[in-house]
Amino acid sequence: MIAPGDVVHMECVDSSGAQVRPGFTLADFLAIDRMKIHALTGPIAIEGAQPGDVLQVDVLEVAHKGWAWSSVIAGLGFLDGRFTEPYFFEWKLDGDVSTSLAPAVVPLRPFCGVMGLAQAEMGAFRTRPPGAFGGNMDVRELSAGATLYLPVMVEGGLFSAGDAHAAQGDGEVCINGMECPADVTLRLGLHKQRHLAGPMVESAARRGEDGPEWIVVESGIEALTTAQTATSRLVDLLVDRWGFEPVQAYLLCSVAMKLRLSQVVNRPMVTVSAAIAKSVLPERRLF
Amino acid sequence: MIAPGDVVHMECVDSSGAQVRPGFTLADFLAIDRMKIHALTGPIAIEGAQPGDVLQVDVLEVAHKGWAWSSVIAGLGFLDGRFTEPYFFEWKLDGDVSTSLAPAVVPLRPFCGVMGLAQAEMGAFRTRPPGAFGGNMDVRELSAGATLYLPVMVEGGLFSAGDAHAAQGDGEVCINGMECPADVTLRLGLHKQRHLAGPMVESAARRGEDGPEWIVVESGIEALTTAQTATSRLVDLLVDRWGFEPVQAYLLCSVAMKLRLSQVVNRPMVTVSAAIAKSVLPERRLF
Repeated sequence: MIAPGDVVHMECVDSSGAQVRPGFTLADFLAIDRMKIHALTGPIAIEGAQPGDVLQVDVLEVAHKGWAWSSVIAGLGFLDGRFTEPYFFEWKLDGDVSTSLAPAVVPLRPFCGVMGLAQAEMGAFRTRPPGAFGGNMDVRELSAGATLYLPVMVEGGLFSAGDAHAAQGDGEVCINGMECPADVTLRLGLHKQRHLAGPMVESAARRGEDGPEWIVVESGIEALTTAQTATSRLVDLLVDRWGFEPVQAYLLCSVAMKLRLSQVVNRPMVTVSAAIAKSVLPERRLF
Repeated sequence: MIAPGDVVHMECVDSSGAQVRPGFTLADFLAIDRMKIHALTGPIAIEGAQPGDVLQVDVLEVAHKGWAWSSVIAGLGFLDGRFTEPYFFEWKLDGDVSTSLAPAVVPLRPFCGVMGLAQAEMGAFRTRPPGAFGGNMDVRELSAGATLYLPVMVEGGLFSAGDAHAAQGDGEVCINGMECPADVTLRLGLHKQRHLAGPMVESAARRGEDGPEWIVVESGIEALTTAQTATSRLVDLLVDRWGFEPVQAYLLCSVAMKLRLSQVVNRPMVTVSAAIAKSVLPERRLF
């Protein structure tokens, strides 16, 4: 039990629950117990929190520990029809960037993929699906400086966090961000009896992340299928023009792509933009 | 017919084909002939362009003329179930911003909602649905400094442009951006026999647009329904905390909201973020 306004320091293990370690091989990775995902830190009760209140989570710091991993698992991921072979990749993290996937230079903005409160319903739940209670939202803007607001649904609130990502793109398409252990410092505040339908984020300034981009534009009838095609075309671009192995291009999209609904009204078509910052890649002409 | 590399200057009327004029009322607006939307400028044949080539469109300048309009039309728009009454709004444009929808300060980044080539199929087509040929993509990044690449599908290419928006958010949710006439200057280049599956954009640096944001986070099973709920919640926020009329909050979302697929892999849920830059709004606390 903590008091509203308390600062909490969490030493979060990675999403696998510290099963994955530096130097792992694909064989090692395939032997882990996936039912331990996502290993979270918590729950923390907040004194006086009651259903109808709003929990304010100020993200003060999320510090990685120099390494992270990403994987492809058969049957999971946004392009599961294209990438069917398991794959494991280890990232070395140097301060604000990772250069492990040369020639890409991926900016790091560590955040917790999962931050949430207990659901109103009783029972045991898998952590995969997010909801009004927060949870596995994978909202990349939740890095240091951001504030998350969540509706309290049970007595004490019961806050948990984990699934730290040193970097992640919109979509988290390969199923992983840069999965990493992290030291996480949060301030948990309470607002009594305020209406909040679901999670809200107050983001911090981005650090020079949104300069010029390469953008694949795809229009189609169904939004997710269109987003899949756009993602697959961005993978193709990274393979064709920058020489990445396809599966590594897929991982790069998972940690650095931005995925936007450019228009949702020109029926029957929606338009999706899959973008990657030019600053991530060596300069190259498209044609 | 122009030669590859030529610079083209287009005086584009607004999407209504210059039917809408400054000082219009809702009644005036309801009397226009909507079959004239989108009035485009073109087509322009490019010498030597053949199917299998790639057209490069460098957007050199898109200059508005000081005013624009947005509307709500019954049965159209992303929140057509919530906003069923027709509405008409005129924007005054001052250089790089519009302050017509006080207290919002909306940054302007004029671009053409429609830029495209003739389709491979013969016939007459409505301009609403975009496709591999480009068209009504409403990709807000296509402002001055950006480059658009399109696959040539017929002899000469036959390029058209129009539907200028002084500003538009991701989604173009109310069905309009800031619809405006514009002077558009483009350079049209040609790359012979290159593979391109669909439109690609090389964007320019954004001008301080991506600072801190307010972000509504919504998770659900179907992507567009989830995006609708997120948009509707952002409308609610603008109404509740900043005092906008609901329909004007809807318009503000249509010209300034960003709409992102934050995660598409935490099955069965996807997570959509509907965001608005804090710089658009007066400073206010959420709770």
